[in-house]
Amino acid sequence: MAAYRYSRRAEILGKSVYDHAPGAIVLNSGLAYPALLPDVAREAEIASGRAEETMQYGPLMGLDDLRDQIVRYVAADGIGCKRENVLVTNGAKHALDLACRVFVEPGDRVIVTKPTYMTALINMRTHGVAFLEIPQDREGIDCECLEAELARLESCGERMPKLLFDVPDFHNPTGITMSLDRRMRLIGMARRYGFVICEDDPYRRIRFEGDPIPPLKALDEHGVVIALGTVSKILSPGLRTGWAIAHAEVVERMSMQKSEGGSSPFLQRVVAELMRSNRLARHIEAVASQMRIHRDAMVASLAREIPDARVRAPSGGYFLWARLPEGVSAEKVASRACELGVEVSPGGMSFPGSDPDCYLRFAYSFPGPDEIREGIRRLGRAYRAEARKA
Amino acid sequence: MAAYRYSRRAEILGKSVYDHAPGAIVLNSGLAYPALLPDVAREAEIASGRAEETMQYGPLMGLDDLRDQIVRYVAADGIGCKRENVLVTNGAKHALDLACRVFVEPGDRVIVTKPTYMTALINMRTHGVAFLEIPQDREGIDCECLEAELARLESCGERMPKLLFDVPDFHNPTGITMSLDRRMRLIGMARRYGFVICEDDPYRRIRFEGDPIPPLKALDEHGVVIALGTVSKILSPGLRTGWAIAHAEVVERMSMQKSEGGSSPFLQRVVAELMRSNRLARHIEAVASQMRIHRDAMVASLAREIPDARVRAPSGGYFLWARLPEGVSAEKVASRACELGVEVSPGGMSFPGSDPDCYLRFAYSFPGPDEIREGIRRLGRAYRAEARKA
Repeated sequence: MAAYRYSRRAEILGKSVYDHAPGAIVLNSGLAYPALLPDVAREAEIASGRAEETMQYGPLMGLDDLRDQIVRYVAADGIGCKRENVLVTNGAKHALDLACRVFVEPGDRVIVTKPTYMTALINMRTHGVAFLEIPQDREGIDCECLEAELARLESCGERMPKLLFDVPDFHNPTGITMSLDRRMRLIGMARRYGFVICEDDPYRRIRFEGDPIPPLKALDEHGVVIALGTVSKILSPGLRTGWAIAHAEVVERMSMQKSEGGSSPFLQRVVAELMRSNRLARHIEAVASQMRIHRDAMVASLAREIPDARVRAPSGGYFLWARLPEGVSAEKVASRACELGVEVSPGGMSFPGSDPDCYLRFAYSFPGPDEIREGIRRLGRAYRAEARKA
Repeated sequence: MAAYRYSRRAEILGKSVYDHAPGAIVLNSGLAYPALLPDVAREAEIASGRAEETMQYGPLMGLDDLRDQIVRYVAADGIGCKRENVLVTNGAKHALDLACRVFVEPGDRVIVTKPTYMTALINMRTHGVAFLEIPQDREGIDCECLEAELARLESCGERMPKLLFDVPDFHNPTGITMSLDRRMRLIGMARRYGFVICEDDPYRRIRFEGDPIPPLKALDEHGVVIALGTVSKILSPGLRTGWAIAHAEVVERMSMQKSEGGSSPFLQRVVAELMRSNRLARHIEAVASQMRIHRDAMVASLAREIPDARVRAPSGGYFLWARLPEGVSAEKVASRACELGVEVSPGGMSFPGSDPDCYLRFAYSFPGPDEIREGIRRLGRAYRAEARKA
């Protein structure tokens, strides 16, 4: 065939973030730490024994049992919801896609922080959205700036944003946690300006220090928040199980957009069993302890190898964000590091728009502490070679 | 929240086809026959033991092992392809959604038979497509009519269709199998007019009689066909595993539209193991034998209970299509049957446009022969009550 007549969105091509060069030290992927992957043999046996539930099509909204487990899980974060508010999805990314399908038309604006979660950007771009990019500081999204932008759009009679996407706890990629004050203000703005907040919260329980702040969804009295969750970061990405929590009408409409015939009831049964027993709670403790060791190793190594970088040590989650000194290109450092067998991501992929080319995005979840140290050592060599040229 | 500002596609609301009234005899759902649901305990144990593969994110294109098994599976149908041509998806519906994402813009025309697979219609509507509806006869889609429509659109300078969706083997809902001649002509038209054919082929191996005709994909020398497959009808819907086979460039672009972070490698491992062993082949034989008994029971019961209906006895697959005599409303018969505890679908849901209200769509896959007979008996009562009014 001479040429395919693709849609505009099909022009979006990128490398999968989960493909890596063989043998490379991977410092840029939110993969799970291999030594902590769960053994689900017992739960899979239970699921296999319930063929009439697990081998058939399941309900589009998800198994009632799993939905009830999710209600209990988020209740510990102060989110009060019922089964009817919970939609099971194939991970949080899938939930975001369904939210986009339900709310946005091509050309609609979506509010995001700059930078933000790069895979969410790729996904939202397939919906043809435009981004309203808002900076953030150590308290999270800059509400003054957002308010000014919204007021400006409104006064110009422009199409107002329908959706905001953010990661308020241990933000991907910056690690920032949004303050309570900002959370309250954001919800107020969502009500006033009529947009819905997609609160992506995969890392909340992976906490190293500090007290938790209520999720936006726990502060949401008027149904302006869709809470997105997943077991990918607390248990296993391979189980591809996540959820959206929102007004019953919203999640029902989202369920109608599920193009895959519903999430696999087999995987849902496995996850429901893991949540019902204490295994999930114990697993989360183990992951948080381990990730703290990884973070410490990465922060210490960076201080040694790239002392001039401004590193933001996160209090939880999987990701770390660093700013290189003026004049050193993050793209070039990342590319040179790749030649030395270590994969880091230039921060540009996390920016919805123009890219300052001075940030590096790290994930410390996959490699062990020794690998992290060796990886950052090699990165140091790459950095110094580039810095000499600057 | 007062009112959500939904997208246009979110207005599409419908009942899930897999939700059924408790206790009802279900004669309208492509669920698997419960007694033939596979026991995957052995395969799940293997998958659990390979946590580094199955508990992590997997490659967007799917596990190499499973892709190779799919290559072997379709080779038996005469489809020559390589691993690079195979994309693993969460069922065939998901593959269709990805094809729509890659090819169509809102307002684009998609060619479909009237009637066609109702869930595909729902899915394609979420992409904002318009349908070019083409009738079919016992040889499948009416190529004369399609050619005339395409020529007319071309001469008017209208936007030409980019996609055709059809189920050439044991068509859903009519059970028709497309003739070889029509297949060849369709491929020729796809080349001439520049559209891509989505060949949905879930039922091919569930054959009761007659010789197989090569799939369109086996006749496709120029990459105009995307073959959609699934294990839902030959093994288990709950495994949510399907595939798309197309030009490597097309499936790569489709993979970039996967919003869920890739299909679960756990389920993929289970399916790969079932395909590698003889279990899948043996299972298909068992399903085909059983479905033949179901078809025979339904055809005989219908002849007894609604002798005036024109019933098309399919030579394979899961579905049966019947035309009621003039003046009897299929909607009303279905609704009255529902009150008698039997679920059948009025054919209208399978029509992209206007609905003649004289067809009933049956699936014989889920209920056993005795249930089928009892269900059709009750349907007979519902029919006679309506016919008396006509």
